[in-house]
Amino acid sequence: MKRIGILTSGGDAPGMNAAIRAVTRKAIYNGLEVFGINYGFAGLVAGDIRRLEIADVGDKIQRGGTFLYSARYPEFATKEGQLKGIEQLKKFEIDGLVVIGGDGSYHGAMALTKHGFPAVALPGTIDNDIPGTDFTIGFDTAINTVLESLDRIRDTATSHVRTFVIEVMGRDAGDIALWAGVAGGADEIIIPEHDFDMAAVAKSIREGRDRGKKHCLIILAEGVMGGNEFAEKLSEHGDFHARVSILGHVVRGGSPTARDRVLASKFGGYAVELLLAGKGGLCVGILNNEIIATDIVDTLENGKHRPDLSLYALNKELSF
Amino acid sequence: MKRIGILTSGGDAPGMNAAIRAVTRKAIYNGLEVFGINYGFAGLVAGDIRRLEIADVGDKIQRGGTFLYSARYPEFATKEGQLKGIEQLKKFEIDGLVVIGGDGSYHGAMALTKHGFPAVALPGTIDNDIPGTDFTIGFDTAINTVLESLDRIRDTATSHVRTFVIEVMGRDAGDIALWAGVAGGADEIIIPEHDFDMAAVAKSIREGRDRGKKHCLIILAEGVMGGNEFAEKLSEHGDFHARVSILGHVVRGGSPTARDRVLASKFGGYAVELLLAGKGGLCVGILNNEIIATDIVDTLENGKHRPDLSLYALNKELSF
Amino acid sequence: MKRIGILTSGGDAPGMNAAIRAVTRKAIYNGLEVFGINYGFAGLVAGDIRRLEIADVGDKIQRGGTFLYSARYPEFATKEGQLKGIEQLKKFEIDGLVVIGGDGSYHGAMALTKHGFPAVALPGTIDNDIPGTDFTIGFDTAINTVLESLDRIRDTATSHVRTFVIEVMGRDAGDIALWAGVAGGADEIIIPEHDFDMAAVAKSIREGRDRGKKHCLIILAEGVMGGNEFAEKLSEHGDFHARVSILGHVVRGGSPTARDRVLASKFGGYAVELLLAGKGGLCVGILNNEIIATDIVDTLENGKHRPDLSLYALNKELSF
Amino acid sequence: MKRIGILTSGGDAPGMNAAIRAVTRKAIYNGLEVFGINYGFAGLVAGDIRRLEIADVGDKIQRGGTFLYSARYPEFATKEGQLKGIEQLKKFEIDGLVVIGGDGSYHGAMALTKHGFPAVALPGTIDNDIPGTDFTIGFDTAINTVLESLDRIRDTATSHVRTFVIEVMGRDAGDIALWAGVAGGADEIIIPEHDFDMAAVAKSIREGRDRGKKHCLIILAEGVMGGNEFAEKLSEHGDFHARVSILGHVVRGGSPTARDRVLASKFGGYAVELLLAGKGGLCVGILNNEIIATDIVDTLENGKHRPDLSLYALNKELSF
Repeated sequence: MKRIGILTSGGDAPGMNAAIRAVTRKAIYNGLEVFGINYGFAGLVAGDIRRLEIADVGDKIQRGGTFLYSARYPEFATKEGQLKGIEQLKKFEIDGLVVIGGDGSYHGAMALTKHGFPAVALPGTIDNDIPGTDFTIGFDTAINTVLESLDRIRDTATSHVRTFVIEVMGRDAGDIALWAGVAGGADEIIIPEHDFDMAAVAKSIREGRDRGKKHCLIILAEGVMGGNEFAEKLSEHGDFHARVSILGHVVRGGSPTARDRVLASKFGGYAVELLLAGKGGLCVGILNNEIIATDIVDTLENGKHRPDLSLYALNKELSF
Repeated sequence: MKRIGILTSGGDAPGMNAAIRAVTRKAIYNGLEVFGINYGFAGLVAGDIRRLEIADVGDKIQRGGTFLYSARYPEFATKEGQLKGIEQLKKFEIDGLVVIGGDGSYHGAMALTKHGFPAVALPGTIDNDIPGTDFTIGFDTAINTVLESLDRIRDTATSHVRTFVIEVMGRDAGDIALWAGVAGGADEIIIPEHDFDMAAVAKSIREGRDRGKKHCLIILAEGVMGGNEFAEKLSEHGDFHARVSILGHVVRGGSPTARDRVLASKFGGYAVELLLAGKGGLCVGILNNEIIATDIVDTLENGKHRPDLSLYALNKELSF
Repeated sequence: MKRIGILTSGGDAPGMNAAIRAVTRKAIYNGLEVFGINYGFAGLVAGDIRRLEIADVGDKIQRGGTFLYSARYPEFATKEGQLKGIEQLKKFEIDGLVVIGGDGSYHGAMALTKHGFPAVALPGTIDNDIPGTDFTIGFDTAINTVLESLDRIRDTATSHVRTFVIEVMGRDAGDIALWAGVAGGADEIIIPEHDFDMAAVAKSIREGRDRGKKHCLIILAEGVMGGNEFAEKLSEHGDFHARVSILGHVVRGGSPTARDRVLASKFGGYAVELLLAGKGGLCVGILNNEIIATDIVDTLENGKHRPDLSLYALNKELSF
Repeated sequence: MKRIGILTSGGDAPGMNAAIRAVTRKAIYNGLEVFGINYGFAGLVAGDIRRLEIADVGDKIQRGGTFLYSARYPEFATKEGQLKGIEQLKKFEIDGLVVIGGDGSYHGAMALTKHGFPAVALPGTIDNDIPGTDFTIGFDTAINTVLESLDRIRDTATSHVRTFVIEVMGRDAGDIALWAGVAGGADEIIIPEHDFDMAAVAKSIREGRDRGKKHCLIILAEGVMGGNEFAEKLSEHGDFHARVSILGHVVRGGSPTARDRVLASKFGGYAVELLLAGKGGLCVGILNNEIIATDIVDTLENGKHRPDLSLYALNKELSF
């Protein structure tokens, strides 16, 4: 292994830059050359590739987004696209690839692996919905950003004795809602992984009010339904005048937290160690507080992200 | 003057607590008794009134929202409501009132004044749309909160080379969009005070892209139209795939900035000085960096908030 | 078990309030009465004890410090003090106690246990130096606070091409320096757990400069030596004009991060479960991402906090 | 005027980058070429000068520090240094210069002016101690950074019922201490512009405690004396066990606030307008909320910065 490439793909996540920095510095420290590929798999196929030096990753660890840019590129699901990508890698004499991203990026890395090109995938997405890891790069920052908003909304909700529905990202996974909900003292957490009963929610709001609660914060993962739809359905069970707040793309950016930067640094460093050892076809994760690598095919086909549902049960007892 | 009352009314704004604290402490320092009225004019009419001591305003200066709660109460527009309010004030032997809030609160204070009860109004609203003052309590915090979101969105917009429409509060006044837009390096600022041409916006985005701009941020005051409507109309002029972010109630809360706390402290202190001097029927403001008081009837009837439109012109030259 | 008490002891840490809230709400949910003890063991001995209701822990989850106050109280190391404490607990008919704090607090809880009173200890300290847990309540917030300062200092260091020595808390444990150092891209991390060679540090700064580095950030755990002493000794090896920044008590306060609030909530909930099951003499922790309880006597006598020294090795390769 | 240069000098301040961006964009918009001079007057004399394009100031508005770097360079006080600087400017065919910085930078700009070279100075320093302006670029960010620390320290101070001395920057000017002190609810503000009596301070702490105050925060401008010295002298008047916190360089960096970015943008835009109109020998400021320019020689020789001492009097009544 003499030259490695690195790209970010899918939605950006805070900490991607810290991971790119770690890969680049660790690789150069160990005698490798590093090439950055712009715009994810799209840039790979197009050959938008440039040498990365130490100075290129200076002053980047604290920045949100990804300085290698990202893109969604469904064309990489085709064999044709994949072979074109490998062609470009060979043209630049790149022997190994680090891919940072979410589900789609993992599938891209898996495809390269199946074609015999060693790729290592790192989980980078705010949604925390990747198999083979307890936490993804960007999740910690995202829940803190949501939390800041929850704290702000609580000020207004308390001042006006109001009910708020706060919609957060999470199409399939309720992790953001779960963690931010517990941390923010949400009264209700509505996630795809758990049924809920609107009449019971309404009853609980009413009872809370009767006991003197000054606010009711309902945190809702977008995968269940939209915030406005939720508020409308809630209104069928009583006059709650619920306000809706949709925390959309704001949650994606921002300077990464300490934990996301450390996680990204560890993941990046480990990815380089794997490639140095000639290993590919792997995805890196943290399981039970240990950095590990698992077979990417097996992880994607048989793995499943398990959100920490103990938080759901805990919140029921803490927010009654 | 021996006893004064204080209430917050209308939408909450960061710094209201700092103003309540300043009024309370300054008044007690000068030998007055202070009564807090909960839930604005609604609580005034209902007699939801309690003595405030120094300890009640401890550890409050840094908090968002209003610990006296607030409410919208259209009934106070009627003479009946106003007289009931004055009755309650007399019952508690309160001789003067400080009202903190926006436009509606000013009208409430004006009504009391017309009935002969000395009231002093302080401008407290994130919208900055009150006549008689360059800045309102809460505005500085609000623009910094919007700015944080803009900075975060820029990370994602740059990473994906995307156009974003960011809708911010401001039904009649574009101040939030103007200030946050200039501070955030927005490419376009769309406000009620200024016409715009959608075709020109589209052209400008296209030209920016051609010159290599990595993102386009359009900040839009809700008074012009909604963010989704804007994005749809923009799409009639080209394929921009603009994402929309609606910064709603999140912008209302949060710990006040230094400037909002200082402004709130100065306003609160000055209101007490006016009441101590037996003066009522006034609203306090800051004009050309000087704390002043103007006649509330005159200000409401003849005053007009003037946003700093020099920022609009400046941004045109800075964001081309 | 019908009544439990709760106290915070030693240095305050962000998330203590979230833990008190969790204990209180979970206990009341499960039919217990809860008593808050002010000022730690000092208040316990003095009988400064009051009933906590749901409303008392409202709007507290987001606050730094501890609303039950804390104090250092060496007198509790004596048998006399301990028996007086138990006397007070009996007077209030309290059957179990939750103690939140650091090393000293654990010893207090152990003493009560040895006297037959069921106590459960939760790790609450920014230093992360408690055996039996990978993470303490407050650590995550502290490293993010340090990180914010590092990011700020980097602005100035880069603008002026300067060397900075940043002293952080940590008498015996280098965890804060390690985590914040990796997250902040520190060039050198100096901790009690690892030797260092001042001449090598000086050489590394010089070489970095020669390679074009714009700044050099050295993060130093106070347990090694003071920042000013370090800068002086460094100056014996060359003219570095190092600036010193001592991040002292600022790092103790602040609104807790999402992770600290979730950890505090889990710890608090689990402590109540233990007491409900009649178990005492335990300390709660998180090991390998699992909430666990270990025997407090055994943990204090045989346990040892193990900082994640893999971060030290990682940083060497990332910061060269 | 066809080409202008820009440099930052002295201590860095948040918002300098926003000012450089504004100057660059406004100048290019108006047909000028812009040259960035690295490392202040040192780089000017050395000819460390490069063309700035629109792309060079992209993604800079939100960054702390100065991407043109800064340096102290006493040699520019000599006529020889000044003439060398002018020689370099002529070599690059630069017709006008914008200088951003504090007192020393103003003197540099004045010297160039006296030699017949048109220079415009912008006030950029966190200290707010420049004549001819109510506010400097960086001051608003600095007071908010100090305020965050004050809020954090209050958590610990309240939890432990303690006295804290917080030393902030400000050798000659007490502005930071004044503003942050009022905003942070400091109990005492100690500044160079006002006498104080240590015995009275001690008495006030004691009386506050007796009235139930949970903390005492003393904010101290470094120009009066150091924090440790203050605490020691205070201890001669009683056993206060005051903790000391020195907020040093941390306060210099960080992303600028909305107000600092707007101020920097306005100042930068106005500087270009002045140069376009062929005017030099001026310094830009904001007086009574209006952007103005004054003669630099007159301002330096006869001007005087006036801190807002009404804040001192106000705090006496609000913090008793």
